Amino acid sequence: MERIRPIIWENNTLKLLDQRILPHKESYLPYTQLPAVADAISDMVVRGAPAIGITAAYAMVLAVKQYYKSHPNDWKQQIKQEVAYLAKARPTAINLHWAISEMQGIIDSLDEQGEPLPALLQHAIKIHEEDIANNKLMGELGANLIKADLSSDEKCSVITHCNAGALATGGYGTALGVIRSAWNNGCIAHVYADETRPWMQGARLTAWEMVVEDIPVSLLVEGAASFMMQNLTSSKHPIKWVIVGSDRIAANGDVANKIGTFGLAVLAKYHGIKVMVVAPTSTIDFNVSCGEEIPIEERSLAEVLTFSGQQTAAKGASARNPAFDVTPATLIDAIVTEKGIVLQPNREKMAQLK
Amino acid sequence: MERIRPIIWENNTLKLLDQRILPHKESYLPYTQLPAVADAISDMVVRGAPAIGITAAYAMVLAVKQYYKSHPNDWKQQIKQEVAYLAKARPTAINLHWAISEMQGIIDSLDEQGEPLPALLQHAIKIHEEDIANNKLMGELGANLIKADLSSDEKCSVITHCNAGALATGGYGTALGVIRSAWNNGCIAHVYADETRPWMQGARLTAWEMVVEDIPVSLLVEGAASFMMQNLTSSKHPIKWVIVGSDRIAANGDVANKIGTFGLAVLAKYHGIKVMVVAPTSTIDFNVSCGEEIPIEERSLAEVLTFSGQQTAAKGASARNPAFDVTPATLIDAIVTEKGIVLQPNREKMAQLK
Repeated sequence: MERIRPIIWENNTLKLLDQRILPHKESYLPYTQLPAVADAISDMVVRGAPAIGITAAYAMVLAVKQYYKSHPNDWKQQIKQEVAYLAKARPTAINLHWAISEMQGIIDSLDEQGEPLPALLQHAIKIHEEDIANNKLMGELGANLIKADLSSDEKCSVITHCNAGALATGGYGTALGVIRSAWNNGCIAHVYADETRPWMQGARLTAWEMVVEDIPVSLLVEGAASFMMQNLTSSKHPIKWVIVGSDRIAANGDVANKIGTFGLAVLAKYHGIKVMVVAPTSTIDFNVSCGEEIPIEERSLAEVLTFSGQQTAAKGASARNPAFDVTPATLIDAIVTEKGIVLQPNREKMAQLK
Repeated sequence: MERIRPIIWENNTLKLLDQRILPHKESYLPYTQLPAVADAISDMVVRGAPAIGITAAYAMVLAVKQYYKSHPNDWKQQIKQEVAYLAKARPTAINLHWAISEMQGIIDSLDEQGEPLPALLQHAIKIHEEDIANNKLMGELGANLIKADLSSDEKCSVITHCNAGALATGGYGTALGVIRSAWNNGCIAHVYADETRPWMQGARLTAWEMVVEDIPVSLLVEGAASFMMQNLTSSKHPIKWVIVGSDRIAANGDVANKIGTFGLAVLAKYHGIKVMVVAPTSTIDFNVSCGEEIPIEERSLAEVLTFSGQQTAAKGASARNPAFDVTPATLIDAIVTEKGIVLQPNREKMAQLK
């Protein structure tokens, strides 16, 4: 059993670890209806592209459960409006659409008259369990990549952005999965984590995951990343990798991820540091040719202008709050998926993951 | 009279606008003794390299006033311990040492027996007034530089980091002085301001200064700077300049400034955006050969791990909190001083400012 479990299915109820109040409180919120789950995704009770996908799969189970009971002969039609609502919960993470499409495929294959729940729940659980298994596999692949650049007893530092950990997935994590595996392999001396304004995923979530597992972690304000990259260059444990997750990868290898990732990748290149993106193939959107086509969510300005409900910025000041940015494939050294690693990604190499 | 006055000398008292609680409260704290002023500088009641210098000059007046009264025959010796304490208030901004040295020069020139206060107060006021005048001059020089790149009715956007405004100086500001002048000249359409974690000088101070003068400003988390640079490239008002102040400039043109400036300059180069540093020549330290020799203050980790006294980061997580970084001269397009503009700064060009 994983120590950190963001998503639990229990007694016909979906339970989500409320990530808005972590790490100060570990509290699960129960859900039995799809619209409330969609709102939980919008409000970031649960966040992280793979975790959003898994949550959406369970949300579909909840919708079918409700409408099969109230409209046993017409439930496939009845759920459509709620499924459309779910699909709009957040625009950037493609895993949401991937999971809905996976579950819709099962629904389409079912006889309208038969009891649909066992097959659907089984598939949601499969999506959930496969995500964890894929994370562990990617963790090994990524850790090997780190090891390959080090001499036998050498360790390095790494830097990560946002939270692509157990909390952002079914468990274990994508970027933090690689960091966990590399830590266990003795390749990592220290983890630097961007605090990740405005939502503080680094300070609240990544740091918490690292502390729970006794992996040494130091938080940085985003502005300190370049300083630390430079500062550690001639130290015993220089930063060798930027390791991040992704919310959507375009067909050419451009990567949408939490705002600040693009800048961090530019800084990495300037300092001769490599960039690793860790994401399951469900994050790849082959319908999107390049990063410019990925929809970028702009969230409430209050996330920037206030803190814990308290106004921090000068009154009358405006803000911009794009939640994601796109890192061009040319800045990325490796995309690690459960189907293998793509080095120096481009359209041709990405197509081989299809 | 300036609208924003961070430092006021009145009734033999130094009054500092408490920048820790801006913009929510405009409150002046009174000082009549040097050690309390040194602590106010350490605690960032007042901040910004030129403002720290002016404050230090007035602090010297307070010390002399006190010791000339208590030790009229020995005051030059008596003040030494307090002056040494003042010199250690913050390590990076050279203006602190510059102002102490200026005032010490006046002290050295005085007869120990004569009333020292008029000459010292006059010199502190001169430092203060010249700073404002220099800011206005640099404002014009920098605004002309912006104008030179634009066609006759073209406007651009600019991005600034931290607060190099009226609050960081005697008044008017260095980087924000240029922005004020360029706004008045009709060259600027919009100002983007990094919120500037951890101390939020951008959100609290820069945004406030812009709002007070009706200059349109949008706050960004640091991670959004690269996104906005890219996003506005093909807009009507692309970002054409990064404009910042400085805490110390080395003899070769390397620039120490608020943490995050270095990264912002790297991002600017990546996006083909120019970098302007605005600072009076009192910020140049010809005793320091290059940026590596500039001492970088590391401040309390609590600034990163907490917010408004409330723990935000996971308990057990550590942090790094360098308050400044060094932008190499090679990334800088222009250093604007009151003695003129240095384009593409290097050691030879900087030496001409001596």
